[in-house]
Amino acid sequence: MSEEGKRLAELAKRRGFFFPSASVYGGAAGFYTYGPQGASLKRNLEDAWRDRFVFREGHMELEGPDVMPEAVFEASGHLDGFDDMIVECPECGESHRADHLVEDATALEEVEALPLDEVQDLIADHDLTCPNCGTALAGEPVEQFNLMFATNIGPGSSSPGYLRPETAQGIFVEFPQLKEYARNQLPFGVAQIGKAYRNEISPRKSLIRVREFTQAELEHFVDPETDSPDLAPVEDVELTLYPASEQTDDDGEHVTMTVGEAVERGVVGNEWIAYYLGRAKTWFERIGVDMERFRYRQHLGGELAHYASECWDAEAELGGDWVEITGFGDRADYDLKKHAEHSGEDFSVFKQYDEPKVVEKPTVDPEMGYLGPEFGGTAGEIADALETLAEKNPQSFEGDEVTVELDDEAFTVPVEKTGFSVEEVKETGEHVTPQVIEPSFGVGRLVYTVVAHALERDEVDGEERTYLSLPPEMAPTTVGVFPLMDKDGLGERAHEVAADLREAGMAVTYDDSGAIGRRYRRQDEIGTPYCVTVDYDTLEDDTVTVRERDTTAQTRVPVDELSETLQELRDGDRSLDDA
Amino acid sequence: MSEEGKRLAELAKRRGFFFPSASVYGGAAGFYTYGPQGASLKRNLEDAWRDRFVFREGHMELEGPDVMPEAVFEASGHLDGFDDMIVECPECGESHRADHLVEDATALEEVEALPLDEVQDLIADHDLTCPNCGTALAGEPVEQFNLMFATNIGPGSSSPGYLRPETAQGIFVEFPQLKEYARNQLPFGVAQIGKAYRNEISPRKSLIRVREFTQAELEHFVDPETDSPDLAPVEDVELTLYPASEQTDDDGEHVTMTVGEAVERGVVGNEWIAYYLGRAKTWFERIGVDMERFRYRQHLGGELAHYASECWDAEAELGGDWVEITGFGDRADYDLKKHAEHSGEDFSVFKQYDEPKVVEKPTVDPEMGYLGPEFGGTAGEIADALETLAEKNPQSFEGDEVTVELDDEAFTVPVEKTGFSVEEVKETGEHVTPQVIEPSFGVGRLVYTVVAHALERDEVDGEERTYLSLPPEMAPTTVGVFPLMDKDGLGERAHEVAADLREAGMAVTYDDSGAIGRRYRRQDEIGTPYCVTVDYDTLEDDTVTVRERDTTAQTRVPVDELSETLQELRDGDRSLDDA
Repeated sequence: MSEEGKRLAELAKRRGFFFPSASVYGGAAGFYTYGPQGASLKRNLEDAWRDRFVFREGHMELEGPDVMPEAVFEASGHLDGFDDMIVECPECGESHRADHLVEDATALEEVEALPLDEVQDLIADHDLTCPNCGTALAGEPVEQFNLMFATNIGPGSSSPGYLRPETAQGIFVEFPQLKEYARNQLPFGVAQIGKAYRNEISPRKSLIRVREFTQAELEHFVDPETDSPDLAPVEDVELTLYPASEQTDDDGEHVTMTVGEAVERGVVGNEWIAYYLGRAKTWFERIGVDMERFRYRQHLGGELAHYASECWDAEAELGGDWVEITGFGDRADYDLKKHAEHSGEDFSVFKQYDEPKVVEKPTVDPEMGYLGPEFGGTAGEIADALETLAEKNPQSFEGDEVTVELDDEAFTVPVEKTGFSVEEVKETGEHVTPQVIEPSFGVGRLVYTVVAHALERDEVDGEERTYLSLPPEMAPTTVGVFPLMDKDGLGERAHEVAADLREAGMAVTYDDSGAIGRRYRRQDEIGTPYCVTVDYDTLEDDTVTVRERDTTAQTRVPVDELSETLQELRDGDRSLDDA
Repeated sequence: MSEEGKRLAELAKRRGFFFPSASVYGGAAGFYTYGPQGASLKRNLEDAWRDRFVFREGHMELEGPDVMPEAVFEASGHLDGFDDMIVECPECGESHRADHLVEDATALEEVEALPLDEVQDLIADHDLTCPNCGTALAGEPVEQFNLMFATNIGPGSSSPGYLRPETAQGIFVEFPQLKEYARNQLPFGVAQIGKAYRNEISPRKSLIRVREFTQAELEHFVDPETDSPDLAPVEDVELTLYPASEQTDDDGEHVTMTVGEAVERGVVGNEWIAYYLGRAKTWFERIGVDMERFRYRQHLGGELAHYASECWDAEAELGGDWVEITGFGDRADYDLKKHAEHSGEDFSVFKQYDEPKVVEKPTVDPEMGYLGPEFGGTAGEIADALETLAEKNPQSFEGDEVTVELDDEAFTVPVEKTGFSVEEVKETGEHVTPQVIEPSFGVGRLVYTVVAHALERDEVDGEERTYLSLPPEMAPTTVGVFPLMDKDGLGERAHEVAADLREAGMAVTYDDSGAIGRRYRRQDEIGTPYCVTVDYDTLEDDTVTVRERDTTAQTRVPVDELSETLQELRDGDRSLDDA
């Protein structure tokens, strides 16, 4: 673990941000609990996400269950394809990612794409051993391991269920209902903030690779033919990009350009993705991601999910590594088509034309009195084949005869016996299966990033100080209120001040234990932007000391202006220097 | 299903409150999805809960994982005891609650408490048949079915995990960490809002009995010896109570009294529970539970959980039945003691005395030179037994000889050889395992109740109207903004009005489709308390029409006073009559 990672893990546990769950029982790798500070910061982050990506975009929100029936994942492809390759040590019983073992020991990349037996051979060829106990792994079977957590719904095993590996499927399966709420008008977006579960082989790096995590996903359903985003509000937002072409170039580097330029120059191909890269950049900044440690990286061809045509990841630098914190993908119509196919339900939107269109529709009306005697039992099939051919390839009917193939046998029919004609038909609209643009945010990774990027150290009064420079909107506590001492009525007055600030909607912590300096340090470590001290002067002139976390600057403010002053400081309308 | 239940299910699906999940695949019983309106209402309800039971009480919040390792549930007792009795039909394969079948067919109660073979005999004796297909169930085995959803953590089955059946355990297992955050001071409270899962045999009644649900639980850790709540803020709150004594009395009825009276007369035995009954009553009223359809019912002796000494349920009347929506229990020190026992960790709080206490501590210092030769290999055990005896029963050492028993054998030792003495020891404090008071709210049931109790029907302009009389704080949308028509600049002006209201923090829906009357009905059905119409007069005099949901009263308000007017209406500081 990096130095930053260690400092963060220690602070996160000690101050109540996050820590491994159920550690009194040794815990289970990959499960974390958010303590009081972390739960609060996480909620602030989710509220900020909802504000930006649901309310301000005019999208809907949904909340579906975590346990879903097997049919959903048969259709989505997760049941068959959501696997990791594993090899189990015959000695210690620990399972390892087989592809990672090979990649670590060789120059090979994307070993995941190789057949299992080849990977098994590579393990033998390179004499690979168990990283845990050193036992040789040659000859041990390499197997696919499905990453979904499986369970049974109801008694017995007749009704398997799975913990959803992404919140997205809970939106896709309800599309036929959701389009009703959108009154059958594209585009519309549906968001969900909720848990997702992946039974990782090797959970690691604190909140970065866990088995249970929170996603904030938005599925934006658009008409691929006619809808396009309004880029105006984001076109001047500057992006740090790491396109595929730069990654494969030996001298490749990050490039900086505006959203408008990225679209114009074709660096970002999909305008919807470009729109969300712009929106998200500003939002990441708002929640406290350090823009010096941030980039958008395009997926390379081999990395793309089977359904995706373009994908960019927002990445944050954490302890020296670039870590994905959000994915922006174009899932095309893959999921909706799959669910339509598997369920037989309508996952399209009927798009009304402004005016009915007259289209030419080739049809046949085969003379069965001729086909029957001529072809016997095959006559019906031949009639169907003629109908299909007329739709797909009407030119075939231009000559005197037309030939259809059935099970490799050719049947020739005189065109005059097919009743071929082209009719003019009025169509009022068409069924469109929407394209899906998906910004998918990892909430736990964002919490981790925001805390990591806020972790600062400086020196105050000759002592080293650790503080979290969290944006006020993210901070678990907005104001710490302290009585200088808990006597002479200072406690009572401080309680009143705290109550007033709570009434004004602020998250307030009251603390009367220990020296003022220690209380400041405690609040600094949890990122509280402002502290208010009630002292003997308060009883005289009704003013209090306001102290700012990052600068440690202090000023006196009249109690009756306190709430307003703090709100102005929080909103950046004022700094302590001019207070 | 009741008439109310049917109307509600229809409205809930059509308008996007809640509906059975994954219905395109036939779904899985007991899993529900909250649509856009329901997700929003549920969030409002959770925020109101947090405001009342976390922020205003000064408690902490935590967010733990849904999947927890087996050791947690071994300790909590869920692995062994969280069972339902089932019998499977040999013909159709459907499983049924065996105890319910017997209870439905006989006058017996609490059949759950009988041994399995007796229940099996009762099924045979009463010729009970499968409710699904009519096949005789005589002779079919009655078995215990554990209600936890089981899964495996990591590859293989060596690390079983379970979906938590209550959020509470996620708090209890972290107690050693949480008490640090509380600086080892009792009392303190820790809350969690999150999913819980129970693999019910027969999920039913919409959101009432589901397999995946949201709980809002508060675990209030108190010192059973010295802590007591401040009843002052709630003592005058009036409660409708249905105590155990009234339930077992043939003429029993609801009784009404204040919290203060209930405590004084001993109707509610536990003051902490009384405190929360008072706080919750006011809160239920605030979120829209109809107080004419509400009561607190005390658990009867047989109903109490094995760990609970007193328990009251908040119950709402729904479709003719009384349904539990919240439980208020005294879990004593059961869970913390169990976890301490199973994990070997410290689940107590060290309570410092104001002044050190001098206590007499009887001890022994056995003369091994005597015990060894006399008792051989048993000498060590005898020494331990003497030590235990001295602590528990120091009077035994008053004579010349003392006798200890080991495996039914008695060993007699002269007291002078035991080194018995009584020392005076200074103790600075003691380890206290807190008592746990638990208000446990079912969020889904509350959502259902709030919508059911808000469902109203009246007649407007000669037409029947359905509306939800939700409190503004709960309503998914606060204001609907409509342009009279989408032309002549009315749409643009209405968009501006909507944007201003959003800026003021309100949940706004913009709707320009269909006649104004239809738009009102749509908002009425989702419980939007206010609608604002922009018409031609708006362009002249900059006023809009504000219309109130319940009364359908309308008034004109200047646009620049709109936000303030709506806030006053929402907060009840003004009604439309004096607008």
